[in-house]
Amino acid sequence: MAKNRLTTEEFKNGILAGEKSVLGRAITLVESKSVDDRKLANALVNSILPYTGKSFRLGITGAPGVGKSTFIDGFGEFLLNIDKKVAVLAIDPSSKISGGSILGDKTRMEKLVGKPNVFIRPSPAGIELGGVAQSTLESILLCEAAGYDFVVVETVGVGQSETAVKEMTDMLLFLSIAGAGDDLQGIKRGIMEMIDLVVINKSDQIEKEILGEVKSNFAHALHLFPPRAAKPDVEILSCSALNATGFDEIGQFISSYHQKVSRNGFFEENRKAQKISWMNRSLIHLVENHIQNNDKLKVNVQKFESLVSDNKLSPLDAARQIFELLNLV
Amino acid sequence: MAKNRLTTEEFKNGILAGEKSVLGRAITLVESKSVDDRKLANALVNSILPYTGKSFRLGITGAPGVGKSTFIDGFGEFLLNIDKKVAVLAIDPSSKISGGSILGDKTRMEKLVGKPNVFIRPSPAGIELGGVAQSTLESILLCEAAGYDFVVVETVGVGQSETAVKEMTDMLLFLSIAGAGDDLQGIKRGIMEMIDLVVINKSDQIEKEILGEVKSNFAHALHLFPPRAAKPDVEILSCSALNATGFDEIGQFISSYHQKVSRNGFFEENRKAQKISWMNRSLIHLVENHIQNNDKLKVNVQKFESLVSDNKLSPLDAARQIFELLNLV
Repeated sequence: MAKNRLTTEEFKNGILAGEKSVLGRAITLVESKSVDDRKLANALVNSILPYTGKSFRLGITGAPGVGKSTFIDGFGEFLLNIDKKVAVLAIDPSSKISGGSILGDKTRMEKLVGKPNVFIRPSPAGIELGGVAQSTLESILLCEAAGYDFVVVETVGVGQSETAVKEMTDMLLFLSIAGAGDDLQGIKRGIMEMIDLVVINKSDQIEKEILGEVKSNFAHALHLFPPRAAKPDVEILSCSALNATGFDEIGQFISSYHQKVSRNGFFEENRKAQKISWMNRSLIHLVENHIQNNDKLKVNVQKFESLVSDNKLSPLDAARQIFELLNLV
Repeated sequence: MAKNRLTTEEFKNGILAGEKSVLGRAITLVESKSVDDRKLANALVNSILPYTGKSFRLGITGAPGVGKSTFIDGFGEFLLNIDKKVAVLAIDPSSKISGGSILGDKTRMEKLVGKPNVFIRPSPAGIELGGVAQSTLESILLCEAAGYDFVVVETVGVGQSETAVKEMTDMLLFLSIAGAGDDLQGIKRGIMEMIDLVVINKSDQIEKEILGEVKSNFAHALHLFPPRAAKPDVEILSCSALNATGFDEIGQFISSYHQKVSRNGFFEENRKAQKISWMNRSLIHLVENHIQNNDKLKVNVQKFESLVSDNKLSPLDAARQIFELLNLV
């Protein structure tokens, strides 16, 4: 970030003017771990806040192989055709291990790449989930300030990435295919209760009867969870992302969902709760990092860990003693 | 605790001598929220630590109505007959709401109540989970110092109580009955992957075929999770707690489980990891409490919450500013 560094003002103006290259550099800035970059990032994000919040944020999850990229490519084109400006971001804590397959190859989204009203950002590689999730949240804000009114956040269903995406989006879409057994897997992974819409992809490749069965399996699985008061019932739709069929219904559901939660106030309430929750989680994250990275504390923590392991000090008393060392105001 | 207050030494000696009344008062002490009691509790728990760790700690969970009390009563008697000293504790964050039904009526354990080698402690009512869980962990230690070599920790499956019990015991037993649909509910609640043994209770009341079906449903549900390297495969057994049938098999499984994890080192490793994890969680808990209860901070946190809600400050920057207010060493 050192060379040709922009000022906060230059970043802000570029972003508000919708300049993609500045937006890209701003996202690189919020992803940076350098202390100086972080200061500039804070100032920048705070300065663009008044211009944020006006997009619809759609989280998309699903197992590898269900066609998430193809779906985002096709459905993104559908959104462009109804005059949306579409930003695509990815959150992927496993990108280091998997070699960054998620959005790593932008060219997989052939219909979107290069279009004027589209911004695609691959997943940041090699940072731990806490960091990824926070920078993705800031990237959403930057995209909104740049005028994108539909932000898609893609995740592979690894670890807590889905929870993170749920907590920064307005709606979570679960993409599946026939035969994936995702109804049960979804319950097992605890994501079924987070889902707002199920879409069965590649519906052109399966028989109508089987599609019906897959849908009823999902309906059964979703039935295990309590009814939703503020949000519309989860629907189970289907599409062929490759052939661009089924997008109309999906678009209609998202639109009516958006209308309902806007009218009953849930949309705003949820956004506020998400912000407070991000604040609190970030604070705990900072305290944990501080304890782990402070050399003086680290030695003490290790000493306490040994004492606790050897039954010489109770875990709770050790915690109290470390807490006292923190010397909180 | 003010009147007839014992000293640390008196507490310790009474506990090591196996005096139940002193043990009971010591548990009341660790459950107390008073600052003075807490200091005495810390000193006491630290002083008895060398005498702890020698029990087998069995967590028991299951939905209301599956017969947990009857099971503990019957299986406890089985344990007494093989010369175990049995302590029964409960962890129940909902006891305030439900009126303290869990172990609230000690007389429900007719076979155990009043026996010399048995100690039963009802759930502490009206404290939040963090507090309950911590005092239960300390109660386990006190029971061990008093010579109880089999500690049963009962929980109703509410919120995070099962996770808390899992994190303070050596083995988690899931009690169920036919027709409870617990195989799916268990996956949904995310506890299936924590379970070490499933026991279908009231097996005398169901047909053999149905029992087989229930067992195979559980086997199917458990099959969704990866194989266990360090721990024996989960078994699905059955019993009639009321008629005291099936206990032999359960006792044998627990015994062979204990042997396997002791030999391969998992038992000790897991205990150590549990202690470190309690230390870390207690620390975070203390920091959170501090932030919530410090008047000066509280005002600031509320100010930041407003700024964040109104898009005047980014959640992450607000967290950073609160973090700076903490003025950590």
